[in-house]
Amino acid sequence: MGTEIQVRAMYDFDGVADNGELSIRANEILTVTRQDVGDGWWEGRNVQGEVGFFPEAYVETLPSVPQPPAIPARNQNTYSSGGQASSWDSSSYNQQQYQKTAYSSSYSYGQTATDGGGGEQGYNFSNSQDDDGWDEDWDDDTSSNYSDRRASQQDPDELAGEGVFGLSAPNRQQPRKPSSHSQSSAGDAKGSGTIRKSLNRFTVFVKSGGENYMLGSAKATVDPRDRMEVVETSDGIQWGKSPEVFSVEIKNPTKASKLKGMKSFIAYEVTPTHTNRSVTRRYKHFDWLYNRLVEKFSVISIPPLPDKQVTGRYEEEFIQHRMAQLQLWMNRMTRHSIVSRADVFQHFLSCGDDKNTWKAGKRRAERDNLIGGSFFLAIETPSTPLDMQDVEQQLDNFGKFIKSMDDSVKTVYNTAHDSSKKHVGPYKREFQKVGAAFNALSTSFELDNTAKSRPLTEAIAFTGRAYDEIGLLFSEQPKNDLHPFMDALHEYRGIIPTFPDILQVHKGAMGKFRECQKLQEEGKMEASEVEGVQQRLETISYATLAEMNHFHKERISDIKVMMQNYLQQQIAFYQQVTSKLQEALIQYDNV
Amino acid sequence: MGTEIQVRAMYDFDGVADNGELSIRANEILTVTRQDVGDGWWEGRNVQGEVGFFPEAYVETLPSVPQPPAIPARNQNTYSSGGQASSWDSSSYNQQQYQKTAYSSSYSYGQTATDGGGGEQGYNFSNSQDDDGWDEDWDDDTSSNYSDRRASQQDPDELAGEGVFGLSAPNRQQPRKPSSHSQSSAGDAKGSGTIRKSLNRFTVFVKSGGENYMLGSAKATVDPRDRMEVVETSDGIQWGKSPEVFSVEIKNPTKASKLKGMKSFIAYEVTPTHTNRSVTRRYKHFDWLYNRLVEKFSVISIPPLPDKQVTGRYEEEFIQHRMAQLQLWMNRMTRHSIVSRADVFQHFLSCGDDKNTWKAGKRRAERDNLIGGSFFLAIETPSTPLDMQDVEQQLDNFGKFIKSMDDSVKTVYNTAHDSSKKHVGPYKREFQKVGAAFNALSTSFELDNTAKSRPLTEAIAFTGRAYDEIGLLFSEQPKNDLHPFMDALHEYRGIIPTFPDILQVHKGAMGKFRECQKLQEEGKMEASEVEGVQQRLETISYATLAEMNHFHKERISDIKVMMQNYLQQQIAFYQQVTSKLQEALIQYDNV
Repeated sequence: MGTEIQVRAMYDFDGVADNGELSIRANEILTVTRQDVGDGWWEGRNVQGEVGFFPEAYVETLPSVPQPPAIPARNQNTYSSGGQASSWDSSSYNQQQYQKTAYSSSYSYGQTATDGGGGEQGYNFSNSQDDDGWDEDWDDDTSSNYSDRRASQQDPDELAGEGVFGLSAPNRQQPRKPSSHSQSSAGDAKGSGTIRKSLNRFTVFVKSGGENYMLGSAKATVDPRDRMEVVETSDGIQWGKSPEVFSVEIKNPTKASKLKGMKSFIAYEVTPTHTNRSVTRRYKHFDWLYNRLVEKFSVISIPPLPDKQVTGRYEEEFIQHRMAQLQLWMNRMTRHSIVSRADVFQHFLSCGDDKNTWKAGKRRAERDNLIGGSFFLAIETPSTPLDMQDVEQQLDNFGKFIKSMDDSVKTVYNTAHDSSKKHVGPYKREFQKVGAAFNALSTSFELDNTAKSRPLTEAIAFTGRAYDEIGLLFSEQPKNDLHPFMDALHEYRGIIPTFPDILQVHKGAMGKFRECQKLQEEGKMEASEVEGVQQRLETISYATLAEMNHFHKERISDIKVMMQNYLQQQIAFYQQVTSKLQEALIQYDNV
Repeated sequence: MGTEIQVRAMYDFDGVADNGELSIRANEILTVTRQDVGDGWWEGRNVQGEVGFFPEAYVETLPSVPQPPAIPARNQNTYSSGGQASSWDSSSYNQQQYQKTAYSSSYSYGQTATDGGGGEQGYNFSNSQDDDGWDEDWDDDTSSNYSDRRASQQDPDELAGEGVFGLSAPNRQQPRKPSSHSQSSAGDAKGSGTIRKSLNRFTVFVKSGGENYMLGSAKATVDPRDRMEVVETSDGIQWGKSPEVFSVEIKNPTKASKLKGMKSFIAYEVTPTHTNRSVTRRYKHFDWLYNRLVEKFSVISIPPLPDKQVTGRYEEEFIQHRMAQLQLWMNRMTRHSIVSRADVFQHFLSCGDDKNTWKAGKRRAERDNLIGGSFFLAIETPSTPLDMQDVEQQLDNFGKFIKSMDDSVKTVYNTAHDSSKKHVGPYKREFQKVGAAFNALSTSFELDNTAKSRPLTEAIAFTGRAYDEIGLLFSEQPKNDLHPFMDALHEYRGIIPTFPDILQVHKGAMGKFRECQKLQEEGKMEASEVEGVQQRLETISYATLAEMNHFHKERISDIKVMMQNYLQQQIAFYQQVTSKLQEALIQYDNV
């Protein structure tokens, strides 16, 4: 009753002051002081404080101010350049940026427009280690021997030193804080901003151990069990098929607590088909696994986990949604013939609830020699030499593809997000407005309460309700089509940013090989040595091409399913609308 | 390119001034100065002239300012009362108000949003006699003997004198000018504002000759051929059926000119089924007929003709639309068993192209004795006396019905008008935005031009086009559903305002009867005389009830058809959308 309504003038109106009318200008904002003036007039106050009558039809009511959407990345370069594509290269593109900006608050479909108080639920990606339960339970043996290796993927300061991303936290509430890993790697990074660009450019390559491997200094005995293949098939270069194909089901999220309820967490039941034995895993175990996979496979795309989310963590909807996202992640990892065979992955899936067995497997995984650059030692490739110029061209095109797909996925995602909001807001309102208009007509016809008049009155009332219900259908529809659609895109928004680093490893290897060729020309390196380098480059190339082809295969299948599901749901929706209208239409048969 | 875009802030945003950001407050209006900033940022200027960046998602673009809708009646009484229904009575409601305000600019569907230059086409009602061709051709014998009779329906000055309607022209561009008739009647109106309210209140009653009739002073010989019946049927009191039922087709609008092309006009071919002979009629002939019918039938609803429209008068679309409206008007008159039998109506329909025959019929019609109050002399009613209290109650309810329907028809009309604009604008844009997003995805996928990738790329491109086409379907749809729907409502917006005057005639008669009863009580009037007055009141009551029932019958049938057509078209539309989506879906079968 007492809330003030704000309206925007849509047209100019020259009021007659003597009639108590207020002159208004198009786009002026007015506060309505009376709506019961009658006959199409309202009374309102302008910003100058003048009060008077104006035609109601000349203004549109403004919605009350809801939660704002995310602020986009604050990027000084982007501000000034005006262009987009040209400024992109693989080093300016990484997971950190992706996680810190695009996702952290924009992934909040539906809720925004409807929730009065609850606000947004941001389903973020996160590698954050600030888990309150992290240093407890099974993880009390804090080993630091792997944190350095991971720094190349994790250190935001180093990225800031590039001067390309002056990112700030999207909702401005949490200033970006360096992760524990960036600190542990500060020693070799010599502080932020001091690393020379040329060095920095090969960071991923050098840090992942790619350089060591190329120069032949990575040594490890490879157990035949650990051998991984790249094969040439009619479909091109592919990862060798896994001898055992299985899938994993994640279900029954259970809220549990320890320390007398001071700490609570969700335990999931994880069941792989090949063991058919359920194990219990928490988010932190997934996170541990994720980090092992990232450090082990420098040319395999390991998409980030869904965010841990601090607020509303145990709300049913959130838990279900995160479980669905964990399931998608697990499916993707299971489908990868190399990842799914990895010891650490199998340990995660099959280790029972015995603490010591877990710890043994954990320690073994963390001491794995075949990680990063050394992983290539375990790869067997076809003996056919590759045309290196062709390989470079292919990977260059792939880089462009990834960049372009990143843009278009963002566009589609944002469009879907907008559309989702419009379904919940304006579309619903519009159809309900039509419903209300029919309802008004029916109500006025009620004044002729004769037997001849009543059937029409009732048919119109039915039509009014039908449009009202169609409005509701609109607001419910995103759950059926746009949200699953966005979930699928969301996965790709996590996958895409893993590729620039993968391509960077290859680029680094390529550069190293050329360096060695030059040294040979200058007589500073033996031909046999260079040949070894070349062979190792071929291994990296084969692996990278296999991963590229794996990506495309997955993409085609995923996007196909996403589009089909979306269109099927859209069709079902419009059929439902049509039925509602048909129901309304037959009401007129007995008028 | 150089046009400024105005946006409204939907949320508060605290900009960081050092980043060149602009702080904005919800509902603030900004002018966009750059949209190519990138990454979700725009640059804009606030009203204080400050310029800076803000998130694009925080604002909504305002439409450019279209032609405003009509200004509602400026009614001082309504302003101050706050109530609606209570302040309404038949004297504050009339055709003049209706024609001068509600319609003249609001009836402009569709065009507004799409037309860049052409602007709105206002299809107005008009009784304007300022036809450049009016005083020529067949109408050179300017007779003034009927203009006085019509003054009661025509004189805006007199209405202004009531102090109720301080109307101004809706778009304020054309100050209201008195029609030629208001001048010719100035003599008996004694100038504006000087008529006393009590007298004025019975204006319609007195001027139409109702008072004369009630007092028995209207005398005329009624040819048996001219007798009209009111009958009591199982459906209630009705106008007697016409012995001859026919329909009329209006077609072949032909542009003709005279005075060496100085004057041009449209000639329509008018063909009634009962003569099956086509005659040629111009708008001015319709207008002449309209005025004859209005003066003759004081208790029959004669809806106004479509407006003559001065600008763009010969544009194909306008001509077709006006012809369609004339056809609707003609159908309605033809369906009325009393109107369709009238000599003047038959003369209009059947008189050939001979100038003298036309003139003779014209003169006859203009000298018709059975017009206005005298028309009641021609009416034969059932002999059953009516319960006057019941009649009064019925007509009172009918007045309320008419008022309520007027409001709800306006609501539905405005909703339809809004919805029509939304189809052409935002809905189209939204679907095309979705189409463009899919198109962007497909374009990025083109970068993987392999046989495996291509089918998906093409299916997505197809989907993009499908959504684009659905956008077009949305913008085309109002022509199929909302425009005919609005045309039907438009007719009622013309019919409804004819009733308050009709009810006023009955009220006047009722008052006169009570006056006579009082005179009888005071011994100033003979019982036999009062009995005559009562009988005449019964005749008026029967006629008014017959017209009321006729209205309801027409209303139920018209609105039923309107709703059915609308729903059928809506169903067809959503089925079309569904087909488009189904076409898109099958593209994925061979991916």
